[in-house]
Amino acid sequence: MRIVITGAAGFLGSHLCDHLLADGHEVIGMDNFITGSPDNIAHLAHNEKFSFYKRDVSNYIFVPGKVDAILHFASPASPNPQSKSGYFNLPIQTMKAGALGTHNCLGIARAHNAKFLLASTSEIYGDPEIHPQTEDYPGNVDPIGTRAVYDEAKRFAESLTMAYHRFHNVNTSIVRIFNTYGPRLDLEDGRALPNMIHQALLGQPLTVYGDGSQTRSFCYVDDLIDGIVKLLYSDEHFPVNIGNPNEMSILQFAEIINKVTGNTAGITYVDARSARDPQRRRPDITRAKSILNWEPKVSLEEGLRRSIPYFKQKLGIA
Amino acid sequence: MRIVITGAAGFLGSHLCDHLLADGHEVIGMDNFITGSPDNIAHLAHNEKFSFYKRDVSNYIFVPGKVDAILHFASPASPNPQSKSGYFNLPIQTMKAGALGTHNCLGIARAHNAKFLLASTSEIYGDPEIHPQTEDYPGNVDPIGTRAVYDEAKRFAESLTMAYHRFHNVNTSIVRIFNTYGPRLDLEDGRALPNMIHQALLGQPLTVYGDGSQTRSFCYVDDLIDGIVKLLYSDEHFPVNIGNPNEMSILQFAEIINKVTGNTAGITYVDARSARDPQRRRPDITRAKSILNWEPKVSLEEGLRRSIPYFKQKLGIA
Repeated sequence: MRIVITGAAGFLGSHLCDHLLADGHEVIGMDNFITGSPDNIAHLAHNEKFSFYKRDVSNYIFVPGKVDAILHFASPASPNPQSKSGYFNLPIQTMKAGALGTHNCLGIARAHNAKFLLASTSEIYGDPEIHPQTEDYPGNVDPIGTRAVYDEAKRFAESLTMAYHRFHNVNTSIVRIFNTYGPRLDLEDGRALPNMIHQALLGQPLTVYGDGSQTRSFCYVDDLIDGIVKLLYSDEHFPVNIGNPNEMSILQFAEIINKVTGNTAGITYVDARSARDPQRRRPDITRAKSILNWEPKVSLEEGLRRSIPYFKQKLGIA
Repeated sequence: MRIVITGAAGFLGSHLCDHLLADGHEVIGMDNFITGSPDNIAHLAHNEKFSFYKRDVSNYIFVPGKVDAILHFASPASPNPQSKSGYFNLPIQTMKAGALGTHNCLGIARAHNAKFLLASTSEIYGDPEIHPQTEDYPGNVDPIGTRAVYDEAKRFAESLTMAYHRFHNVNTSIVRIFNTYGPRLDLEDGRALPNMIHQALLGQPLTVYGDGSQTRSFCYVDDLIDGIVKLLYSDEHFPVNIGNPNEMSILQFAEIINKVTGNTAGITYVDARSARDPQRRRPDITRAKSILNWEPKVSLEEGLRRSIPYFKQKLGIA
């Protein structure tokens, strides 16, 4: 297939390029480098099956030649208010990537009779009242909250995708992506796991807010990409959660990270900051298991071992 | 002020034109007539303070001269699946009006340092779990449901409006409009009240689904427009519910409609159809009362008496 990937220079987009190229496809990457990095696709520079266009998908985009599939992964996604590339500091661009970007991609899919796959997110569930989250849970997002620029953009993108499927018969799929980690993740992403990995590699004590009993679940990137590609090859039109349901307390995460990195600086407990993040989020992956025959395979310890060489190199640690 | 109104030929947009012209403003109406009707603004043809441009606000729009305020009322809004102008039959246009249209209007507001007012809707609450609905209720909307094309478009529009306010300091207001009736309402709108008025004026028995105990609240259009204009003149940036909190059962509505229209054909009870509409929705108008000193004044009987001459004329009844 000839596959377009928007956000190709991002964390997930670049891994998707790698996987689809390895599957024998031709890949056309697009990115405007607002949040993605050329470093993430530098290794593809001489791959004859890979081409790249620096484009903002929120503007009109044109793809030369036939397209068989288009995967829309372009969006700021970091919830870190301090990060220049987080969505708090790029609110309009984030909303445009979700609405105008999705609209442009769906137009290409329709024109080429191509498959469209939308990268949606667990954030569409907001601060969930049910646990774990199933795909039929409508979510708890305040449309005027400061996080809503990301959450509502993705909810809109899902609605528009379903409208193109129902009204224009476009072959669409929607993946709801849960927390993911691995090489090329930005350690300043703002989430708990990259924060703690960052501290561990610098030999600092890991900051744990409150008593560390709040939970998270993180999926290793190879598992996640495997699930997304299975969805791409499927005929499933309704959203599918892809993520790791193995929920752990922040304290457990901290202990494993210190163990795997050999960090002896321990843990610093600080007052729980005001709850900006949802307290709990864990995917129910029943649909992914039954429809795609997919489930994650890589343990947290193994995933960390595979990621650490990348993070060390990024941080300039031998 | 020099005020742009999108959706100016619609039910609410045209009343807004009338009200703001009466207040002494200059009004520039825009509409693409997909759902609006030239009949609704025909009476303004010779008003020197009114001008009109046939435009699709989802495309690029240009407004000649200085703009002091822009009010975005353009959108399909009828939930009637049988109506050609309902959002079930215009899903993509509905989503574009909410996202691209709002984006274009906010761009104009920003460029002119003008006030922006968004026509949002009680539909952003979806099928609500609390009753009545306060503005801080995040809603219960399924982003992939068939109604979502309207609901999510308006949720997105609210988020984008807040983003422009917070990030670009645009002076914005958001009104969440509840069910409204009055002259120029499309009797094929698909909601219970216009359906029953339509039947009553034709001398037919009014169709009541189930036992008629399900409730609705409807606001007379003059009351609603009065609240919206008060919001326009205010400095309130967070959403404000505007609607009539006087909740009645469908059966009560039916009895009042038959009484006011002099319809003697009575009521026909039919099996409750599958619940497409939310069972209950009623605005909590505490904020509108305290911030805008607004509350509705027109009773249902009075509102019906004021509306019926228009509906009779439309139906060709003497």
